[in-house]
Amino acid sequence: MSDDNPLSLACPVPAPAGAQILLAHGEGAGLTRRLIRELLLRELDNPYLRLLGDGAVLPPVEGALVVTTDSSVVSPLFFPGGDIGKLAVHSAINDLAVSGAEPLYLTLALILEEGLPLATLQRVVKSVAEAACACRIPIVTGDTKVVARGQADQLYLTTTGVGRLRPGVELGARRIQPGDVILVSGPLADHGLAILAARENLGFEPPPQSDTAPVHELVAELLTTTEVHFLRDPTRGGVSAVLHELVEATGFTMIVDEANLPLSDCTRGVCELLGLDPLHIANEGKVVAVVAANATDRALQALQAHPLGRHAAVIGRVTGDRPPAVLVRSNLGQLRRLEEPRGSPLPRIC
Amino acid sequence: MSDDNPLSLACPVPAPAGAQILLAHGEGAGLTRRLIRELLLRELDNPYLRLLGDGAVLPPVEGALVVTTDSSVVSPLFFPGGDIGKLAVHSAINDLAVSGAEPLYLTLALILEEGLPLATLQRVVKSVAEAACACRIPIVTGDTKVVARGQADQLYLTTTGVGRLRPGVELGARRIQPGDVILVSGPLADHGLAILAARENLGFEPPPQSDTAPVHELVAELLTTTEVHFLRDPTRGGVSAVLHELVEATGFTMIVDEANLPLSDCTRGVCELLGLDPLHIANEGKVVAVVAANATDRALQALQAHPLGRHAAVIGRVTGDRPPAVLVRSNLGQLRRLEEPRGSPLPRIC
Repeated sequence: MSDDNPLSLACPVPAPAGAQILLAHGEGAGLTRRLIRELLLRELDNPYLRLLGDGAVLPPVEGALVVTTDSSVVSPLFFPGGDIGKLAVHSAINDLAVSGAEPLYLTLALILEEGLPLATLQRVVKSVAEAACACRIPIVTGDTKVVARGQADQLYLTTTGVGRLRPGVELGARRIQPGDVILVSGPLADHGLAILAARENLGFEPPPQSDTAPVHELVAELLTTTEVHFLRDPTRGGVSAVLHELVEATGFTMIVDEANLPLSDCTRGVCELLGLDPLHIANEGKVVAVVAANATDRALQALQAHPLGRHAAVIGRVTGDRPPAVLVRSNLGQLRRLEEPRGSPLPRIC
Repeated sequence: MSDDNPLSLACPVPAPAGAQILLAHGEGAGLTRRLIRELLLRELDNPYLRLLGDGAVLPPVEGALVVTTDSSVVSPLFFPGGDIGKLAVHSAINDLAVSGAEPLYLTLALILEEGLPLATLQRVVKSVAEAACACRIPIVTGDTKVVARGQADQLYLTTTGVGRLRPGVELGARRIQPGDVILVSGPLADHGLAILAARENLGFEPPPQSDTAPVHELVAELLTTTEVHFLRDPTRGGVSAVLHELVEATGFTMIVDEANLPLSDCTRGVCELLGLDPLHIANEGKVVAVVAANATDRALQALQAHPLGRHAAVIGRVTGDRPPAVLVRSNLGQLRRLEEPRGSPLPRIC
């Protein structure tokens, strides 16, 4: 990127070897200001953040405003296909995207554990900067707190996204009707499996890769092509959690065809080996879309025209069957009720 | 409040005795949805949050947008004069206020430690709701994550504030000139001493009380009365951190008259006893204002006309003296350089 791009990254300086976060980095005095200027601002620099005010003053936004917030507490911090920094940026951008918004700005709040290597912090902040820069969305303001050893696990990030509602877009579970069709934008469960394999050292070769990606352009493509009733990014709890939420919100039944679920060969193999249902597993670069039946082809084509949606598929439909439930039609054609797991299969997935 | 007020609080239901946060409350499936509906939404309900979308869709905002973000990690969670919930709301509102904005909306992200009593969570969320309701600012969207025991200290909150820049207001260190006058809106150091006394069981009777309060109306009063060059809420690092930041940003010298610092009798006594300088200690309901000398009387009167500014005072002035520094004129008239503490006098103050 050229130097006059407000999002261009300042040249990073490696943190001194062995340097760590101290409680005093969170005291608001000189050491806090140095951390902000010499590490955070250096990576994230842009004209809004540079003023280091208590808040960022931004140009007027035309149209309805959309705001989202997400804490990222994923463990491990770095995993095949991504890291907590990318995840924090993508989760905010994706929440804006599936709300029908064009993302404009992000904020970043950091909670750091005393003793965190500065090099780790720098690596994460650099990743935040790269992900934000790739989407051309500046981090306009931030906050840094430090807690004592044992009061956090290295670091947690909270990103808030601010966007502008795309004109004419109206999304919501209330728009869903029996007969509507359910699509997903690509292979499921890759993020959750990547985290599981990395955390538990499962030793798959090659290791499953997270799908973390910003879906705002994919969604823009979809929304400009056809009318959409509902969008959601199937993160924690996977597609299953989205469908159960829709059953609760609409009182309708969601039927999924197992044979139509897009899955990579790797994911299919790992899920079979470990006895996991990919419907319950988290994604970080996918969308679930619900459209009217007569919009199915246009929606599918719009998704498939974008690199992130090449393997988009129709996975099911909405019916008025009673009692309302999430049902899965197996490869053999049998219908079974999909229950949500009640335990905790995989904490700190995002 | 009447039932048709969008911010009216739904009737709270006590959490079952002994119930705790489980890792599964953070999994995104059924237990997450129950926690959100039965505890969070019940306390924080308003038309935006109620839709439980991935983001909140808000009416258009006229004029420049102002956005702030703050994590609250204060320990203990509850202290004389306030708690983490009030602090999280006030810190976002105050950051908007001193940025020259009218606060409009808040978001709330929670990081919860496994094992946190639901009753504690409910008490905190109720306090968030009360503080937000008192300011008539809705919490429009949120996020809830759970980390394992020992990976957080009970709970951390991150609030993001969205506001509208007040027309004609332009604030910033760049506007400060030699000859300008420095004011504070009231007695200093009360929040920091309240936390210190509560955490260390210092046994003062009555215990020091936090000053946590929303300053947006006080600031509105000030900004409509006179032109202001710079505003900041002196939280972590106290007034000292604000003045040191101004020295760095402007290259000017800040001279403070010790005799003019507004201090409660309690604070004066505790600071003398413990050998603490109130200039370094955090506040949560105060503002530092810098105005042109000819605006001093109007600024002081505007502040003093508001209940939160009754004890406002002129505490110093800006000079071109070299080298730039923060100087304190003692009660005996001697000038000394005010250095910032380099250690960590009091972590997790906010």
